[in-house]
Amino acid sequence: MTSQRTSPPPADIVRDGLHQTLTFGHDEPLRLDSGATLSPYTLAFETYGRLNAERSNAIMVGHALTGDQYLAGRHPVTGRTGWWELMVGPGLPLDTDRYFVICANVLGGCMGTTGPKSVNPATGRPWGLDFPGITVADMVRSQVPLLDYFGIEQLFCVTGGSMGGMQVLEWAARYPERVYAAVPIATAARHTAQNIAFHEVGRQAIMADPDWCGGNYLLENKVPHRGLAVARMTAHITYLSEAALHRKFGRRLQDRPRPTYGFDADFQVESYLRHQGSTFVERFDANSYLYITRAMDYFDLANEYGDVLANAFRETPVRFCVISFTSDWLFPTAENRDIVHALNAVAADVSFVEVESEAGHDAFLLDEPEFRATLGGFLTGCAEKRGLLP
Amino acid sequence: MTSQRTSPPPADIVRDGLHQTLTFGHDEPLRLDSGATLSPYTLAFETYGRLNAERSNAIMVGHALTGDQYLAGRHPVTGRTGWWELMVGPGLPLDTDRYFVICANVLGGCMGTTGPKSVNPATGRPWGLDFPGITVADMVRSQVPLLDYFGIEQLFCVTGGSMGGMQVLEWAARYPERVYAAVPIATAARHTAQNIAFHEVGRQAIMADPDWCGGNYLLENKVPHRGLAVARMTAHITYLSEAALHRKFGRRLQDRPRPTYGFDADFQVESYLRHQGSTFVERFDANSYLYITRAMDYFDLANEYGDVLANAFRETPVRFCVISFTSDWLFPTAENRDIVHALNAVAADVSFVEVESEAGHDAFLLDEPEFRATLGGFLTGCAEKRGLLP
Repeated sequence: MTSQRTSPPPADIVRDGLHQTLTFGHDEPLRLDSGATLSPYTLAFETYGRLNAERSNAIMVGHALTGDQYLAGRHPVTGRTGWWELMVGPGLPLDTDRYFVICANVLGGCMGTTGPKSVNPATGRPWGLDFPGITVADMVRSQVPLLDYFGIEQLFCVTGGSMGGMQVLEWAARYPERVYAAVPIATAARHTAQNIAFHEVGRQAIMADPDWCGGNYLLENKVPHRGLAVARMTAHITYLSEAALHRKFGRRLQDRPRPTYGFDADFQVESYLRHQGSTFVERFDANSYLYITRAMDYFDLANEYGDVLANAFRETPVRFCVISFTSDWLFPTAENRDIVHALNAVAADVSFVEVESEAGHDAFLLDEPEFRATLGGFLTGCAEKRGLLP
Repeated sequence: MTSQRTSPPPADIVRDGLHQTLTFGHDEPLRLDSGATLSPYTLAFETYGRLNAERSNAIMVGHALTGDQYLAGRHPVTGRTGWWELMVGPGLPLDTDRYFVICANVLGGCMGTTGPKSVNPATGRPWGLDFPGITVADMVRSQVPLLDYFGIEQLFCVTGGSMGGMQVLEWAARYPERVYAAVPIATAARHTAQNIAFHEVGRQAIMADPDWCGGNYLLENKVPHRGLAVARMTAHITYLSEAALHRKFGRRLQDRPRPTYGFDADFQVESYLRHQGSTFVERFDANSYLYITRAMDYFDLANEYGDVLANAFRETPVRFCVISFTSDWLFPTAENRDIVHALNAVAADVSFVEVESEAGHDAFLLDEPEFRATLGGFLTGCAEKRGLLP
C-alpha cells in the first residue's frame, strides 16, 4: 500500500451534524469535461460495514438522479429510511458483514457535496448557474480521491441503478484496474432522445417558475417549488410502468364517490403525483436538478471512445453483470443489452439478467426477489473468486 | 325526412370572418353529465364535400385534444394546412367527391365552439373556471343538433383518432341508430392511470404559472404561456415513439459542434420540443386545455354501462373498424383490442387492424400508407353496401 494512489489522506472527515464530508482538490483542482476546474470541492458520503485489512472488500454505489448517499438507516434530512435499505445491510445482497459499502452524493448534488447551492469561494455567494456544467465522468473522477483516502487500490465492486449505472460504466471504462467487478443496473450507455426530452420538460418547468429567479432563488430567499414539483411529477411517471400505475391506482377516485368535474385531484393517481411533487421539493435543490439531468443527457460513453462502445471496454479485466427489468421503459432492456453486446464484442466476462418485473424503472429500488438474488449471487460468486469468503 | 330529429333548422349558420358557427340550445338547454346546463351554446364547424340528396353520405370526424374543425385547406388562425389534409379530399380515403365530411370544434374548445374562453351570458365576462366540467359524452351530445340541422338521420360514418376515437365510441354507444359505420382510431374505451397522470402534469404546469391567474388570465390580459408550453411539451413526447424520436433527432446537437455544458437547447430534440411548446401557445387556450384533458380523463365507457364494456354495444347495428398502431404507447394496441373484444362479445360486425408504424400515437395524423389503405378500403366497402357508389 505504498503506491501514489494510496498516499496519506489529503483531508480529514468533517461531520457537521448533518452530513459527513471530505474536501479534496486544494492542491490539484478537479478538471471537468467542460474545461472548467473546481478547487476545492467537497464530497458528502456514507459508508456501511467495515473495510477489511486488505482493503479489498469495498463496494462503491452510484446513486440515481434524485438519490443520495444515504443507502440504509435513517436519512438525516427526510427522516425516512435509505433508498437501498432492502439491499444494504447484514445478510442482504450488499452484505455489510462482508463488504465495506461507500456511497457519495454526486458532484452537482444537494446533499452535502459541492453543487450549485454551495458557496462559490470566489464570490462568497451560492454558485447558482455560475456552477460549471458537469458530466457523469466528472462525478466519477471526483470520487477517485475517496478511494485514495481509504487506501483502496481496487474496488471489489461498483454498482448502481439508472444514473448510478452510468457511473458504473464510467468507472469500469476509465479505471478498469481499480474495479474488480461491475454491476450496471437499469441503465444505458447513452441517454436517448426520449430521455433527453423528458428531462428538458422538467428543466423548462423549473425555469418557467418565476421563483427560480434566473437561478438566483437562494439569494432572493425563494424556492421554485411549483416548477420543481412539475418536473418531479413528469419524471415520476417515467419511473413506473403503466401496469404498475394501473395496479396501484387504476381509475380509482380519491376519497369521493363520483368525479367533481373540476380540477381537484379526483383520481388517486393525481393525488399520488401531487404528493410526489410536493415532498420532493422539500429535499431537493432545483438547480441541482438542472445540472444532474444535464449530466445524464450528455452521457454517451461510446462518444468518448470514437463512437464504438466496445472500445470503452477493450481488454477490460472487469467482471460484469448487467441487470435490466422487463417493464422498464425509461432504460429498457434493449439499452442494457447494447452494453452487453459491446462487452461481448471485446470478449469481456459478462453475464446479463433481464428480471421479470411489473414495477418499471423503479424496480431497482423495490423488493424484487429475482433482482436481489441476482445481485447477491453475483457478488457472492465474485467474493469467492476474490478470496473474500471465510 | 319528417321525424322530429330532422325538424327545421333551429338556427342559421353565422360566418364571422374567422369561423363558421351554429348556435343551439336556446329552447332546450344542453344537459351535461355534471348536471349543469348550457343555453345557448355555439358549435364552430367545417364541412367538406356535398351532402347528397338522400343525406346518406355524411361522415362525422371527431378531433383530438388539440385538434379542431379544420381538416383540410388553410387554417384561418395558424395559416397551416388542416390536420387531416392527407385523409380528407378528392380521391383521398375520406373522399370529398363521394362523402360529406363534417367536423365540429368540441365543446370546451377554443376554435369558435363554446368553451371557457367564451363569454358567460350570465356575467358578460369569459367563463374561465366557471365553465362547467364536460365529458366526451357531452361533446357528442352537443353535436347531435348539427345532424338535425343538416337533416341527416343517419351518419354514414363517424371516425376520429385519440379523443376523436372516444367520440366515435360514444356516438356508436349512445346513438347506434344514427351511425352506419364507426372507425375508432388509436384510442381506448377508458383513459388509463398513466394517461391521467400525464394530463395531470400538464394541468399542474398550467396552474403553476402565475399568469394563469387562477383561471382569470383573460380578464387580467395575461397568457400563461410558459405553463401551457410545458404542458404541450410533456404531451408531445407521449405522441411520438422512442424510435421516431431517435430517427428524427437521436442525440444530434443543434447547430453547434459540441455541448455548451449549459441549459441552452444543445440537442435538436430540445429545440424541437421548445418549438412545439411555443407555437402551441399561439393557437390554444390554457383553460380549454384543462377542460378537454379532464374530459378525456373522465372517459370510461364501460362505467356508463354497468362496468361491462360489451353492454355499450349490445345489439348494435353499427359496422366497426378498429385501427391501432404498433408503436403507439399512449393508446396502445392492447387498449384498442379491448374495444374489439367487447364488440366480439356481443357479436358485432367488427374488423381490427393493427397498422405497423414507427410513428407512435401521432401515426393517425401522418402519411402511413397501410393506415390510409385500411380506412379508405373500409369506407369504400361500407359505401358499396350503403348504396353510395355509382
